[in-house]
Amino acid sequence: MGVLSGVPRKVRIVEVGPRDGLQNEAVMVPAADKVRFINMLSAAGFPEVEATSFVSPKAIPRLADAGEVFPAIERRDGTRYPVLVPNVRGLERAVEAGVTEIAVFTAASNTFNQHNINATIDESLENIAAVMARAKPLGLRVRGYVSTCFGCPFEGEVPAAAVLDVSVRLHDLGVDELSIGDTIGVGTPNQVEEVVGLLLQRIPAGRIGLHLHDTRGTALANTVVALQMGITCFDSAAGGLGGCPYAPGASGNLATEDLLYLLHGMGIETGVDLEKVAEASRFIQGVLGHALTSRYLAAGRPSFGSSPGPQF
Amino acid sequence: MGVLSGVPRKVRIVEVGPRDGLQNEAVMVPAADKVRFINMLSAAGFPEVEATSFVSPKAIPRLADAGEVFPAIERRDGTRYPVLVPNVRGLERAVEAGVTEIAVFTAASNTFNQHNINATIDESLENIAAVMARAKPLGLRVRGYVSTCFGCPFEGEVPAAAVLDVSVRLHDLGVDELSIGDTIGVGTPNQVEEVVGLLLQRIPAGRIGLHLHDTRGTALANTVVALQMGITCFDSAAGGLGGCPYAPGASGNLATEDLLYLLHGMGIETGVDLEKVAEASRFIQGVLGHALTSRYLAAGRPSFGSSPGPQF
Repeated sequence: MGVLSGVPRKVRIVEVGPRDGLQNEAVMVPAADKVRFINMLSAAGFPEVEATSFVSPKAIPRLADAGEVFPAIERRDGTRYPVLVPNVRGLERAVEAGVTEIAVFTAASNTFNQHNINATIDESLENIAAVMARAKPLGLRVRGYVSTCFGCPFEGEVPAAAVLDVSVRLHDLGVDELSIGDTIGVGTPNQVEEVVGLLLQRIPAGRIGLHLHDTRGTALANTVVALQMGITCFDSAAGGLGGCPYAPGASGNLATEDLLYLLHGMGIETGVDLEKVAEASRFIQGVLGHALTSRYLAAGRPSFGSSPGPQF
Repeated sequence: MGVLSGVPRKVRIVEVGPRDGLQNEAVMVPAADKVRFINMLSAAGFPEVEATSFVSPKAIPRLADAGEVFPAIERRDGTRYPVLVPNVRGLERAVEAGVTEIAVFTAASNTFNQHNINATIDESLENIAAVMARAKPLGLRVRGYVSTCFGCPFEGEVPAAAVLDVSVRLHDLGVDELSIGDTIGVGTPNQVEEVVGLLLQRIPAGRIGLHLHDTRGTALANTVVALQMGITCFDSAAGGLGGCPYAPGASGNLATEDLLYLLHGMGIETGVDLEKVAEASRFIQGVLGHALTSRYLAAGRPSFGSSPGPQF
C-alpha cells in the first residue's frame, strides 16, 4: 500500500476569495467588479463560491455592499453561494437578498473570539443557535467556521480538545459542514493529524472541511495529510487573496490555483478549470493593483515543447 | 498507526542558496558578501552548505569568483561545503581551492541535458566517471545531481524509469548521495511516491536526497510524502533564492525557512536555527535588492501574546 493509496478521488473546493479575500484589502473593489469576479469564478466550475458577508458595514467596510452584490451575481446551476451571517439581523438581510446558504462563525480560542467578534465562544454559540432556529425552517444550508484551530494570535497553542469541543457543539446545533480554520497560518502536518484525527472520532469526514492559510508555506503539506485522512472539502481563495494587512507580502488564504495544481496533479477531480481561475485572479489583481501571492499564478502553466519553456 | 507515524526524527538539510540560488541572479554579488552569506549560514548550523561552482565562468558568470570565495569562507566543524564540478579540470581547480566534497550533475531527460551542458546523459556519465576516478583516491565525498526528475521543459513528462536508470548508474559509479531534482518545479506528491518508490527498490533511502523547487507551491507537500517514505535529506535555499529569470516573481528553490518551519513543527530535528537562516536571507536580500520568495521570511515567526501579533 502506497502512502497515498487512501486519498479520495474527488474533492470539493469552496472558493472564498470574494469574501475572505476582499474583506481586508486596502482598496474598496467596486460592486460591479465583485460581481464580475464572482461570475468568472462560477464559470470556472466551483461547486461553491462564498460571495460576501452580511456583517455590519462598520465592522467590515469592504463588504458593505453585500446587499447590492449578492442579487446581481449570475447564479450558475451546480454552484452554491454561501454568505457570512453574524446574527439573526444579518440572516434577515441575506435572505432578503436571495441567499440560500449561509456560514456562521466562532473560534476555538476564547481570547481570539472576544477580540474578533466581542463575544465569548459560549455567547457566539448562543447567537448561532438563534440563527440556526431561523435558518433551518427556511431550508438554508449552513457552514460553520471555527477559527484559530491550529494556533491563536493571543493564546498561542490551541488544544485540539478545544477544537473538538466547539466543533461538536456546532455539529449538534445542526451545522451541515464545519470549516476548520488555520486563521493565522501556523499549522503543520502533525497538527492536522491530531486535530482531524480527534474530530473524526465524533464527526463524519464528509462534514469536515479545512480552511488553511499559507502564511508560512505549509498549507499544501497540511492538505496532503488531510487527504490521507479522508477529508474531501477544502476552502481556498483565488490567487491567494486575503494577505494579512499587517505583514505586507505575506500570504493569507491558500491559493486556489496552487491547491488545484496539487489535486489535479494527484489525479483528484474537482470539476474546476484551473486556467479559468487564474484568469479571474488576474482580473481582480488588476482591480486591486498589487500582485497576488499564488505560486502557480506567478509561474504559470508548465510549458513543454521543443524550445525552452518560459519557466526554465 | 497515524499517517505520519513513519516519518524520520532527524533530517539533514543541504543549503544550496550560495550556489544554486545566486547563479541566476541579475546582480553579481561581491565575493566578500558571498563569503559573509556562507559564514552566516554556517553559523545557523547546517550540516552542509553548497558554497559555489567550479564551472566555466563563461557558462555561469555569477560564480566566476569560486576560486576567490571558497578559500575565504570560515569552515565550521560539523559543516561540509560541497561545490559543483563539471569535469576533471573543474575538480582540479576545486581541490586547489581546498574543497573536500563535490557535486556532479546530469539529468533524467536527454534533451534537457543537451541544452543545459551540451552532452547526452551517456556522455555526461562518462565525464562523471572520469571525475570519480580522480575524486575517490583523494577521499572526496561526492553528491550526484539528477535534474528534471519530475518533468522536463523540453520533453514534458519524464518516465520514473529514466530517473531510476541514471540514478543507478551514478550510484554504481560510487556517488555517495543522489540529489533527485524537480528542476522546473512541476512535481506533485503522486510523482514523489512513484519516483522515490522505484528508487528505493535499488538504492538505500540514506543515499537519496530530494531537491525540490516550489515554483507551483508543491515543494512542502512533496516533502511530506518523501518523509513518509523514509527520505532524510533535502536540499533547499535560504529565502527561496534562485527564482527563475524568465518568470519574474516566480519562486525556484524550496525556501529553507519554509522547510525548517515544517520540519520543526513536526518535531523533526535538523540542527539548524531558523531565525539565523532568516537573518542570512535578509542580509543577501539587501545585497540583491529584491524580495525573496520564502513565505516564512515574509510572514515572520508567529508572535503570540496578550496583544495582537503583527501577523493577525
